[in-house]
Amino acid sequence: MNVPIKLGTIHGVGLGPGAQDLLSVRADRLVRGTRHVAYFRKAGRPGQARRIAEGMLRDDVVEIAMEYPVTTEIPLADPRYNASLSAFYAECTERLSALALAGEDVAVLCEGDPFFYGSFMHLHSRLMDRVPVHVVPGITGMTGAWTATGMPITWGDDVLTVAMATLPEDELIRRIRDTDSLVVMKIGRNLPKLRRAVAAAGREKAAWLVEYAAMPEQRVILLTEAIEVTPYFSILLIHGQGRRP
Amino acid sequence: MNVPIKLGTIHGVGLGPGAQDLLSVRADRLVRGTRHVAYFRKAGRPGQARRIAEGMLRDDVVEIAMEYPVTTEIPLADPRYNASLSAFYAECTERLSALALAGEDVAVLCEGDPFFYGSFMHLHSRLMDRVPVHVVPGITGMTGAWTATGMPITWGDDVLTVAMATLPEDELIRRIRDTDSLVVMKIGRNLPKLRRAVAAAGREKAAWLVEYAAMPEQRVILLTEAIEVTPYFSILLIHGQGRRP
Repeated sequence: MNVPIKLGTIHGVGLGPGAQDLLSVRADRLVRGTRHVAYFRKAGRPGQARRIAEGMLRDDVVEIAMEYPVTTEIPLADPRYNASLSAFYAECTERLSALALAGEDVAVLCEGDPFFYGSFMHLHSRLMDRVPVHVVPGITGMTGAWTATGMPITWGDDVLTVAMATLPEDELIRRIRDTDSLVVMKIGRNLPKLRRAVAAAGREKAAWLVEYAAMPEQRVILLTEAIEVTPYFSILLIHGQGRRP
Repeated sequence: MNVPIKLGTIHGVGLGPGAQDLLSVRADRLVRGTRHVAYFRKAGRPGQARRIAEGMLRDDVVEIAMEYPVTTEIPLADPRYNASLSAFYAECTERLSALALAGEDVAVLCEGDPFFYGSFMHLHSRLMDRVPVHVVPGITGMTGAWTATGMPITWGDDVLTVAMATLPEDELIRRIRDTDSLVVMKIGRNLPKLRRAVAAAGREKAAWLVEYAAMPEQRVILLTEAIEVTPYFSILLIHGQGRRP
């Protein structure tokens, strides 16, 4: 006899920039209450999202660590990069779908906000036609970063541009010249290129680098003070100077 | 005999886009626990921030409604606009400073995030050299809006541009043409201009309008379906279509 099973839901849960009390009340409830908890990480590393949730999970939690097959070992432009990641996301999708089809909810831990440059998006697009998927928004890493500087990021009619440091140097220069306020993410090994671009755009004295926003190791420095290496999660900011009564 | 008083703190508390359980755990604690609660509003209106916090405040709360002397009655370019707002912010600063100097904490309710196009910034800059000020980041309204559409806003190396609908039409067209992903805020009566700009940039079919994100009245429509009036807090989105394995 078949007993129909209520489908479980895959929750993409935005954890915010790093501090546990910056999870939303909704996210906090899901992270503490859901038995199956999944997260991405680089092989052999604890993973940023899992680290944020340390000490919050149920005693009987079942953890699903989804380890990227590749991060920076293969260049982005190499077709093997895409193929490898695509197979990986398909495999994760099977694993999480199977749980939802068996009636289990899963909380997928996402640093920042799930729909803003997040890995969860690659599961979301694959899961959404198969099982119930629900997204809990989070405070973005960039919001954590500008809060850390103690200065508003945008005033009045300021234009804010968000760009990735993986863009070509010329494109970065053009974008930095053509905006009031700037956020750059995915910095890591692109730091020297980004420094050159900010300098070429003439804005080196206004550029701040925030490492580990909202975490115990939080550090806010001028870009000119940065050494050649910075964590992948570092964020560059140039604050807008728009209209203010 | 003078008894030294411990100064109170003015907390600028980001409430997020609208749902009560999207406040951060930190914000939730401050909103429920602080006796003095201040918020901006248009005269005669309940105020968006106060509305989000409905039912959360202490029984013995002291509410400080800070009513804008002017919103859209005087054009932005008129010097009286700036003068009037400047005097208003100075007066609010006196009122909140007096409380902090008397040892009272104050929670200033801010929709979205306090440092992202928020009115609190005008108090923050005036208060920061006088009394302790602390900012609690929040989920931005735009994050609530793209979550409402059920689609990620940015992929891979997408550039995101955030622009205000108060910009000149030509400038809007140029910005819309030159970005992968777009957020436009402060729409309200600028809707017809914004529609023309999006159409001129050839992106009308990809543009979504989100009204009252994360609130019970939440509504997601194509821009082409919008009538001539939309709430001030409506947000326009064009989703990026960048790299995805």
